[in-house]
Amino acid sequence: MSEIDFRTIIRRRREGERQIRPEFDELCRVAADGSVPDYQLAAWLMAAYLRPLSDEETADLTLAMAESGERLDLTGVPKPWVDKHSTGGIGDKTTIALLPILAACGLSVTKMSGRGLGITGGTIDKLGSVPGFRTDLSPTEMVEQAKRIGIALTGQTPDLAPADKALYALRDVTETVDSLPLIVSSILSKKIAGGAEVVVLDVKCGSGSFNPTPEKAKRLASALKSVGEYAGLRVRASITDMDQVLGSACGNALEIREALDILRDHKRIRTGPAQRFKELVIYFAGLALHAAGMAETEQDGQAQAQGAITTGWAWKKAKDWFTAQGCESPLEEYELFLPTANERHPVLAPTGGYVHGLDARLIGEAVLHLGGGRITKADVLDLSVGIEIHREVGDKVDAEEAIATVHARNLSEAREAERRILEALTLRQEPCSKRPVILFPDEG
Amino acid sequence: MSEIDFRTIIRRRREGERQIRPEFDELCRVAADGSVPDYQLAAWLMAAYLRPLSDEETADLTLAMAESGERLDLTGVPKPWVDKHSTGGIGDKTTIALLPILAACGLSVTKMSGRGLGITGGTIDKLGSVPGFRTDLSPTEMVEQAKRIGIALTGQTPDLAPADKALYALRDVTETVDSLPLIVSSILSKKIAGGAEVVVLDVKCGSGSFNPTPEKAKRLASALKSVGEYAGLRVRASITDMDQVLGSACGNALEIREALDILRDHKRIRTGPAQRFKELVIYFAGLALHAAGMAETEQDGQAQAQGAITTGWAWKKAKDWFTAQGCESPLEEYELFLPTANERHPVLAPTGGYVHGLDARLIGEAVLHLGGGRITKADVLDLSVGIEIHREVGDKVDAEEAIATVHARNLSEAREAERRILEALTLRQEPCSKRPVILFPDEG
Repeated sequence: MSEIDFRTIIRRRREGERQIRPEFDELCRVAADGSVPDYQLAAWLMAAYLRPLSDEETADLTLAMAESGERLDLTGVPKPWVDKHSTGGIGDKTTIALLPILAACGLSVTKMSGRGLGITGGTIDKLGSVPGFRTDLSPTEMVEQAKRIGIALTGQTPDLAPADKALYALRDVTETVDSLPLIVSSILSKKIAGGAEVVVLDVKCGSGSFNPTPEKAKRLASALKSVGEYAGLRVRASITDMDQVLGSACGNALEIREALDILRDHKRIRTGPAQRFKELVIYFAGLALHAAGMAETEQDGQAQAQGAITTGWAWKKAKDWFTAQGCESPLEEYELFLPTANERHPVLAPTGGYVHGLDARLIGEAVLHLGGGRITKADVLDLSVGIEIHREVGDKVDAEEAIATVHARNLSEAREAERRILEALTLRQEPCSKRPVILFPDEG
Repeated sequence: MSEIDFRTIIRRRREGERQIRPEFDELCRVAADGSVPDYQLAAWLMAAYLRPLSDEETADLTLAMAESGERLDLTGVPKPWVDKHSTGGIGDKTTIALLPILAACGLSVTKMSGRGLGITGGTIDKLGSVPGFRTDLSPTEMVEQAKRIGIALTGQTPDLAPADKALYALRDVTETVDSLPLIVSSILSKKIAGGAEVVVLDVKCGSGSFNPTPEKAKRLASALKSVGEYAGLRVRASITDMDQVLGSACGNALEIREALDILRDHKRIRTGPAQRFKELVIYFAGLALHAAGMAETEQDGQAQAQGAITTGWAWKKAKDWFTAQGCESPLEEYELFLPTANERHPVLAPTGGYVHGLDARLIGEAVLHLGGGRITKADVLDLSVGIEIHREVGDKVDAEEAIATVHARNLSEAREAERRILEALTLRQEPCSKRPVILFPDEG
């Protein structure tokens, strides 16, 4: 292996030649163990940005990255083994609600989640608002828990796909993040290292995501599916709306609460942003159940998911899960133990009219400035703050009606968030139709 | 200045956007003072390789590099200020003969030269065979000497164009050496930092150079001229032959001797490889004199150069020069003080015929393996070894006639060199025409 000169690997990428698996193995070996200087990796990354990898090359890179460290050995965990991924958006608490539903329907779900940066939240941060909840499970603990209750979630560990970790850190500072093959291999390598066979992917599209246009989101979804198949995964990918935030809650503790609400208080949720979130969760549950061979059709999978909620079985799974991972209080008391902010401040519609837009990016920035997100990796979050959105595009509102509630540390920060929310809001006199949350379903 | 984020500089290069002078200033500032990580410079270099700089951008980069450190202030040195550069080849001792001729004709020549690596020799190494010759003149010493005798030559100093030095070191290990705009800016920035107004460039073409084809050499010559003009230099560039070695001598002390021969013993030199070398020296002298406004035409410049040799004035300038830079013995005695090798071994033609080829690259490799060149930067040279070539393409040779003489440390190394020389030699029965040494003259 180590006879491959790294300069040859750079040069062949630079010339756009078809790179072969042993080259990607060597790239990942030296990236993971630090035996090549960062400037040579940086040169390869920029060459890969400007001479993009083919799908076959991306699959080879993905497998090389997945095998650059430990892999989760799920032997003994009941099949099928499923994972879920979102490309990231505002108010995206899907994992918290989806995992118990999938486990209730008989799937085993093991998942590594990340922390948030910028306007995009991270599941690990959100779970930080649950006292005692551990997000540092070891591989052994992951497997043991998945065997017992069908769900295990942990933060990213340096042992799994270390080459991805090294390359990602460099991409961030060399302007090579926004490369489809590099994005795809980074996402899928972690899924493969985590032991998944079936992966459902939620590709966000809109102002609050890194795919502003449907074209870009479609290219990513298509590449994820194509590369995933080459790499031996069953992949389903759908494109969903991120022009509006997902659901009502944006902010760490608020999102945990909304996710648990749709499992426990599902009867209450029939309209509005929360219903839109629930629709997305049930849609992805159906997709996963069908892909895993547990449902004849996606529609049947969705019906099973709805059944798991209605019967309370998903809520029971959620309780098992939170208890298994160390939650200190009975989960029923989540409204009591989740942290709350001092200041609750309603945001009123300045005039009556129809909601034509409620820009997700601006809402994300408002949450960030409330202290609910990280501007730099070192920032400490305030998990209690955030925004609840009460209206969605297409809704009719009256003047002075509350369209949102800000949860802030103090009135001055609340007013600043209010200003941003009103900037995000487009109200017009003419009616406007609702927008689907699933923009482009997976086509199989 | 430092408000420009380096990531923006990388991104704009990556996107092929027109980068502006302040960006190049910032690039060179941080490259020179080490305040940016190498991996970010490497990313920029690969982006520049794949999204090449325009001539205008290259001129801006060149000036930014030239101004990244000290500049030689030639105030007080008689004008015009001339420099000369070769892209590098085998047996290229042009500088040693050309500088005294130009000074004899009234130009002031200040020059920084480099060391050799691989098959290409370096002027500084060659001068190392002259006992006492200093190649570490300070800027002050350079200027003082140029004022006094019209010639000063030194090794590369870290003070002049330090950004070029930093970028060049990284290019070497990131597969970004072979980029026309980066090559051009590296060459010209050092000329500008050295104070030149007029630059003559010898662009080598053939197996013993890094331009194997005329097309590539023409592109380089054209870019050097075009960028040089943008940067405010008067530039002349000609493409010369490096399919055969230049002149007869290849090897450090042997080359010094041949260069001095054409100044002192010019009457002896009328045919063969040495005459071919002399022709090239006179050609470039004519080019420089014309470009500097000291000759009405290039032909008149060549006649002046020939006159400087014939009158012995150039030889006197050579003596002044060597003495000024510390040569311990009278220069007349160069045959005595230049080091000589133990073993002199003639290489005989295996059959009779016409020389159709005598591959420069293979001759260069033979010298390298005799100990006359560096494989790695740390290698110590044997300055006495080398090869004298007695025949050129087009010559008729008899069987058993000596076509070359190897100067080696011992017989075994001499025989190894002999083997390589015979491999370089193509003999055929049919006649073959001579080849011009100036392949494509500068067209003004």
